[in-house]
Amino acid sequence: MKNDEVMNIAKKRGFLWSSFEIYSGVAGFFDYGPLGATLKNNIMNKWRKYYVVSEGFYEIESPTIMPEEALKASGHVDHFTDPMTECKDCLEVFRADHVINDATGKDVEGLENEELSRILSEEKLSCPRCGGHLTHVWSYNLMFQTVIGSKGKKTGYMRPETAQGIFIPFKRLLRFNRGKLPFGVVQMGKAYRNEISPRQGVIRLREFTQAEVEIFVDPRNKNHPNFREVSDDILNLYSSESQIKETDPSKLTAQQAVKEKIISSEILTYQLCLAQRFLRDLGIPDKVIRFRQHLSSEMAHYAIDCWDVEIKTDSFGWIEIIGIADRTDFDLKSHSKHSKEDLRVFIEYSEPKKVTKMVAKPQMKKFGPLFKADAPKIMEALKNLDASDIKESLEKKGNYPIEIDGTIHNLTPDLIEFQEVEETLRGEKIYPHVIEPSYGIDRIIYSVLLHCFGKEEDRTILKLPADIAPVEVNVFPLVNKEELTHIAQEIKKQLRKQGFIAEYDASGTIGRRYARSDEIGVPYAVTIDHNSLEDNTVTIRNRDDSKQVRIPIKEVYNILGDLIDLKIKFQDL
Amino acid sequence: MKNDEVMNIAKKRGFLWSSFEIYSGVAGFFDYGPLGATLKNNIMNKWRKYYVVSEGFYEIESPTIMPEEALKASGHVDHFTDPMTECKDCLEVFRADHVINDATGKDVEGLENEELSRILSEEKLSCPRCGGHLTHVWSYNLMFQTVIGSKGKKTGYMRPETAQGIFIPFKRLLRFNRGKLPFGVVQMGKAYRNEISPRQGVIRLREFTQAEVEIFVDPRNKNHPNFREVSDDILNLYSSESQIKETDPSKLTAQQAVKEKIISSEILTYQLCLAQRFLRDLGIPDKVIRFRQHLSSEMAHYAIDCWDVEIKTDSFGWIEIIGIADRTDFDLKSHSKHSKEDLRVFIEYSEPKKVTKMVAKPQMKKFGPLFKADAPKIMEALKNLDASDIKESLEKKGNYPIEIDGTIHNLTPDLIEFQEVEETLRGEKIYPHVIEPSYGIDRIIYSVLLHCFGKEEDRTILKLPADIAPVEVNVFPLVNKEELTHIAQEIKKQLRKQGFIAEYDASGTIGRRYARSDEIGVPYAVTIDHNSLEDNTVTIRNRDDSKQVRIPIKEVYNILGDLIDLKIKFQDL
Repeated sequence: MKNDEVMNIAKKRGFLWSSFEIYSGVAGFFDYGPLGATLKNNIMNKWRKYYVVSEGFYEIESPTIMPEEALKASGHVDHFTDPMTECKDCLEVFRADHVINDATGKDVEGLENEELSRILSEEKLSCPRCGGHLTHVWSYNLMFQTVIGSKGKKTGYMRPETAQGIFIPFKRLLRFNRGKLPFGVVQMGKAYRNEISPRQGVIRLREFTQAEVEIFVDPRNKNHPNFREVSDDILNLYSSESQIKETDPSKLTAQQAVKEKIISSEILTYQLCLAQRFLRDLGIPDKVIRFRQHLSSEMAHYAIDCWDVEIKTDSFGWIEIIGIADRTDFDLKSHSKHSKEDLRVFIEYSEPKKVTKMVAKPQMKKFGPLFKADAPKIMEALKNLDASDIKESLEKKGNYPIEIDGTIHNLTPDLIEFQEVEETLRGEKIYPHVIEPSYGIDRIIYSVLLHCFGKEEDRTILKLPADIAPVEVNVFPLVNKEELTHIAQEIKKQLRKQGFIAEYDASGTIGRRYARSDEIGVPYAVTIDHNSLEDNTVTIRNRDDSKQVRIPIKEVYNILGDLIDLKIKFQDL
Repeated sequence: MKNDEVMNIAKKRGFLWSSFEIYSGVAGFFDYGPLGATLKNNIMNKWRKYYVVSEGFYEIESPTIMPEEALKASGHVDHFTDPMTECKDCLEVFRADHVINDATGKDVEGLENEELSRILSEEKLSCPRCGGHLTHVWSYNLMFQTVIGSKGKKTGYMRPETAQGIFIPFKRLLRFNRGKLPFGVVQMGKAYRNEISPRQGVIRLREFTQAEVEIFVDPRNKNHPNFREVSDDILNLYSSESQIKETDPSKLTAQQAVKEKIISSEILTYQLCLAQRFLRDLGIPDKVIRFRQHLSSEMAHYAIDCWDVEIKTDSFGWIEIIGIADRTDFDLKSHSKHSKEDLRVFIEYSEPKKVTKMVAKPQMKKFGPLFKADAPKIMEALKNLDASDIKESLEKKGNYPIEIDGTIHNLTPDLIEFQEVEETLRGEKIYPHVIEPSYGIDRIIYSVLLHCFGKEEDRTILKLPADIAPVEVNVFPLVNKEELTHIAQEIKKQLRKQGFIAEYDASGTIGRRYARSDEIGVPYAVTIDHNSLEDNTVTIRNRDDSKQVRIPIKEVYNILGDLIDLKIKFQDL
């Protein structure tokens, strides 16, 4: 399997390894080694160039620990769960849907606990480990729980997604954008999912890095001003219809996808195109990318359209690495409700509207003697109530109860007079909808390693794009002799001074050094040989085709800079 | 207070605000808003330039959740605690040392629980809230605890420092460096400290970002090859001796500090100098920086010399923002012991050494009949034991007990023969010592905001260095008219394309826009006026002195690039 070869090299050469190895490891946790961490940083910085610099979205950073109230509002306390069953004999716990799937081949993802319990019992399924009896299915919450402060005063969780950290300070963000829609906010950071027994290595982590974008839009306008810039991009779309009809995915232009209503909006389609462009820029070829639409049965409760960007792998099939969803107004509404903060946005009309409105006017003379000190409070409360509700209640029931500081006062028809008044409205308050591209950075790194990895003749090459390669250039003396090593060290030092990640290596034959260099994806190698002593030139070698070109030492820095920023191609040297 | 003014602007303008505000907030957690997050990224990238690109240290990334074994080994499960006392009446908990300090003014930090309990009782101290009775003092662990996997199978904690994530995979890192010392490894990321009741805003966080460096060195050589590059740097040193004698800190060159043995090694001194250079580059002036040596009474159990880099503040006095310690071999030894992995490094001698060594040879004829199946195991065990220990025991006690699979066999003098043999040793295994600069990124950001903030005449200015400013350039049309806004928008778009964080603003008078721009530290503003229409020029305005220079539009990009990379000064335009 290519997966095994890639992970083997990744481990051996310092990209990725299991965490806590000396303590026998803990499943679902990985370390990024020196090459992996730099690759990751480079990919994250490239992502920033797309979303922060180019799209102009705001980046923020919120805590990874969150208080329970906030996650109750988001639905995670109640719904971020897996269906579990336990063996009454050996006490091992399993995901109920996996037990059923492994034993029967049936795909039962998304079924209710009751249903799963029924299947376990009907199919007479027993513990996969010891053959013992399995319990009823219960919901296991996938958040890591902790306590904030002492003595269990406040329950907290490690955040299950970075997105919530953007919704919570929405009012501040809206103010930052001067109260206007649309605007986008991004967050990159750790998120957590306490899997019962994660397998699949780096694909299924308990702690992972997300890069999420939340774009807040007026729900009545989901077009995109720059749509024509992507309208000819070709997308490999596996729509829910294709999946149900079991037909192949189809290649459509962005424009067609919108026109044929396969994707629900321009803005969602624009985000699909942007994701594909980003992946291409990481060296992932189009042919291993597809966009799979969520079936209505699998779609999260908050979404109205959702597309997974999937990458083909040899060991795990098609895996989701990005999800792009229209989350509607679910989150903001829910946080409004739980926090009692108004998270709506005031949208100004292009011109003010005149509307007639019914108002409930208190009969002042009767109010004072009747309600005494509560009279002004009741009058104040009336202003914020819907007059037509009051009118209806008075007409139908003959009274309208109103609570002031715990006391209930009954308003009767004689106390209220209704009037139609004309009002000028400057605009209205609405909940924005949210378009969310959500990137799984660890899976993207895995995909990059997998699809940039290749073998040619006797060489193993990692064809990382030059601008994300963790080591940008190797400097080699042709042989390990003082007059050459001295120049090579100096060139390496100068390269570092100019900000290049340059490494020096003089051990082993030059062939072995090139091979090591190719294996970790160093795009260029500068070699100092005996000619260098005579004419101040060096050779620069291109990883992808092993070609070498001789250039003056003093031009090394500019040429490398241009090559790595993709301003020139090696073939043009 | 300057602190209040700065935090007020930081909140209002989108640098920093308390997290979870709509849920009434949770003490000890802050969000970085759009300007704060970008400032933070810029500072972290600058830090990388220092430590990864220039010093050549390896960056890694390990999980924030750690299993208990690893933190047992590091000492955090037992020692990462605060002394607590609880009120028997109102059940509120307090830090015992704070209660004593607040009530008596005595500094009792670092005293044992017993001692603190005694003082509470002797001084007749009661609950600061309700006046109730306080309990005996107990240790409260400051780690956030959680469970990895289901059913409480595995205790985990949020890491209290990023450093441990570097020690644990030390073998892999050593191999990556081809088995040689010295080398350095860095990690930037979240760390956690579950304070009981954090105050002091962003200075005392429960979740914070560290940037830590662990430099592994041969304990017999703590010199630094590039020491002469920093030897004339002047350090404001507040040595433990000065603190005890209550004299002022003294300004010494790095060289003097080493020579006079005020700092314990060249490499530690080099790191102090590097930290000071980094802070200067962030716009923090030398006059608010001092290096305070830990008193032997406050030094962590693992350190032999430790210096805090402290910054002067108006609200909190001198605060530690960086700690630079010689952690010796404490961590690697402790992880070796707990994990049973050999974390030593083989150091090759410059030439092989011949040594004589005593070996214990079993008398084969007697061994077999006596110990039967265990005989080979005993022989194997003998190879790994110290022969002189065995000899001593046999001579003194007449026997040497040896345990094989739970059975104890007694070796007697007649069973063993001792021989002196000559061996050639190529080298020896040692535990490296660790030099650790540990940066508190949040406090550094606070210090940058505090010390870059200033008022001049009517202006509020944040004099952030151009290369860390979150917005690099503002583009303003002089007035909000189509012919000007159109050019301004286009220039902003081009700037974004070239990777600049450029913002456009047309609302309000130009004076107000400059004022807003100065307040958030935008170093340059490009203004399009009526002349621009005639001669394709714009003005570029310098934040720090409000000076403006007229330049051709087509040169805006290069000039801004050079200004922001600090290649040219505004005065030279």
